[in-house]
Amino acid sequence: MTHAVIMAGGKGTRLWPQSRGNMPKQLWNILDGISLLQDTVERISPIVSPEHTWIFTLGAIYERICAQLPQLPQKNIIVEPVGRSTAPCVGLAALYIDDPDACMVILPSDHIIRRREEFLRSLRAALAMASEGEHLVTFGIQPTNPETGFGYIQRGQQIREDVYAVQQFTEKPDSETAKRFVASDEYYWNSGMFIWKVSTLMTMIERYLPDLHQGLQTIKAAIGTTDEQKVIAEVFEGLASVSIDYGIMEKAEATFVVPVDFGWNDVGSWAALPDVWETDHAGNSNKGNVITLDSQGNIVYNDTGLTALIGVNNMVVVKVGDTVLVCDKEQAQRVREVVDELNRRGMQEYL
Amino acid sequence: MTHAVIMAGGKGTRLWPQSRGNMPKQLWNILDGISLLQDTVERISPIVSPEHTWIFTLGAIYERICAQLPQLPQKNIIVEPVGRSTAPCVGLAALYIDDPDACMVILPSDHIIRRREEFLRSLRAALAMASEGEHLVTFGIQPTNPETGFGYIQRGQQIREDVYAVQQFTEKPDSETAKRFVASDEYYWNSGMFIWKVSTLMTMIERYLPDLHQGLQTIKAAIGTTDEQKVIAEVFEGLASVSIDYGIMEKAEATFVVPVDFGWNDVGSWAALPDVWETDHAGNSNKGNVITLDSQGNIVYNDTGLTALIGVNNMVVVKVGDTVLVCDKEQAQRVREVVDELNRRGMQEYL
Repeated sequence: MTHAVIMAGGKGTRLWPQSRGNMPKQLWNILDGISLLQDTVERISPIVSPEHTWIFTLGAIYERICAQLPQLPQKNIIVEPVGRSTAPCVGLAALYIDDPDACMVILPSDHIIRRREEFLRSLRAALAMASEGEHLVTFGIQPTNPETGFGYIQRGQQIREDVYAVQQFTEKPDSETAKRFVASDEYYWNSGMFIWKVSTLMTMIERYLPDLHQGLQTIKAAIGTTDEQKVIAEVFEGLASVSIDYGIMEKAEATFVVPVDFGWNDVGSWAALPDVWETDHAGNSNKGNVITLDSQGNIVYNDTGLTALIGVNNMVVVKVGDTVLVCDKEQAQRVREVVDELNRRGMQEYL
Repeated sequence: MTHAVIMAGGKGTRLWPQSRGNMPKQLWNILDGISLLQDTVERISPIVSPEHTWIFTLGAIYERICAQLPQLPQKNIIVEPVGRSTAPCVGLAALYIDDPDACMVILPSDHIIRRREEFLRSLRAALAMASEGEHLVTFGIQPTNPETGFGYIQRGQQIREDVYAVQQFTEKPDSETAKRFVASDEYYWNSGMFIWKVSTLMTMIERYLPDLHQGLQTIKAAIGTTDEQKVIAEVFEGLASVSIDYGIMEKAEATFVVPVDFGWNDVGSWAALPDVWETDHAGNSNKGNVITLDSQGNIVYNDTGLTALIGVNNMVVVKVGDTVLVCDKEQAQRVREVVDELNRRGMQEYL
């Protein structure tokens, strides 16, 4: 039996001002009428039934998620009481799945995968590997540029046609290291997708994250009782934030990578949008009502109204509500600095 | 007796999207709580009483003008049935003033003049010259750069301390000619302000604009009758658009220029705003809620909400309602091309 655990608690800060607290990136209809979350659920539906599809998120967007995914049982949409990164989230998911032999597919909710058939093919290979033992399996994306914002996976020995042992995980490398990685053909981007059996995960948590293990035991005893939500809240409050990568993958032995080529895009900043939207003859990716004069290479979005550009090149120009962002395309990662500044100034109405 | 005729029918197209059909430039509170129109009326108030201050405009903004100028008799706010440029407007004004010996001061409603005392001093000199004979008097602004968007006035013989005969008017010159004008010290910008007696204007209209003269005779006969508005509408409908400059000043003999230095700014485009608003240490002129990161030399305005810039230089960034303009500061004159395009596309909601 295969379960999907879709992590939908992210904020998508770098897509501000479209992505905000109550309307984060994964809920935005970036794909012409369908959100990244909906796309993620649809993508796995040939392999995972709605009853086995679980969404983990935070409270502010619970209602919107339910509205976007009417096909899921409402009990499968779980609100984490407080965000504690990905390891506690998948640990909690394992408790709800409550089947040691089931396979779990851990998926971000805010990535694009263009080639669904290819994705399913890779997923089947990963599931086969995961189900055959105490194996931790991840996907490896062929890097196209020396991105410093991603983790990298170095492959080791080939295990079978589609699977390699992992030699080493490297968190966000510096620019020189990233260049070296991309120049070699041994490195992949870490996509944040993981495949393993519930029992494998529980063993690894017990081995590498004993505090989390203990917390999960406490929660397990309370599940089904009237205290369930209260206990989960108390336990999560006391947990440290720890990611799957740092807490488990980088420490475990039996880690494997399935190299994939399914048109992945993490939509990590506005600069990624030309790969999602169409680009016109002047190199502008426009979404909304846009007029351009002598303007090239821009990414323009508005939710309503009209945007006019005159003599503007290689800029991100976004209007959402009454908030405007104009940003050099090369500096699109710095959008989070604006969000930080808004937090500092207490300007919650724009967050 | 001195009357002021303030022409408030302009559209201020180059300040789109702030300046629109129902909220043109002259009504915008560009000066922290006071509009250019209100500033114009206040400026002349030491010389011209409210009863002698006349506003000529078009129908769409009549109510707003009345609301901005409660001190004026409502009968002094005149709606032209259709815009026919400035010569028919001042001809009609002369009929309403109905006093051949009165002096008329013709003023645009959408310019800034910083030094009011200096303006009044220049105006008194111009009024003295105008009242002494059949003299057409205008102000000459010392040019600061080879602007091709203005008309130029070449001074001739000095008449008295503050007054020169006009040697020649030159409509918008090409760039080379403008440079030559600015390099010489004989040329002034034509500010579009004129001073003359009512009788002088009527004589000039009869001499140089016989069609307008005849139309005004027809209107004069109807003023005070129940047909007044109908006749004005019919006559204006049949008149050609003709400016004071082209129709009268360039043809007349007895034209005079008073060189002035009273901090004039026609706010001709967004690029003029740094002279109106304050500029911060990074050279940004911001009005509204603005956050900038590594951004210099911009002009940023929003009516509501927030504008964030990252790595943006020398741009105009304007948000009004749900309309956004981003424009290279050097190309600020081209805003009218966007307005033209909106007209072509029939997108009235943005005009």
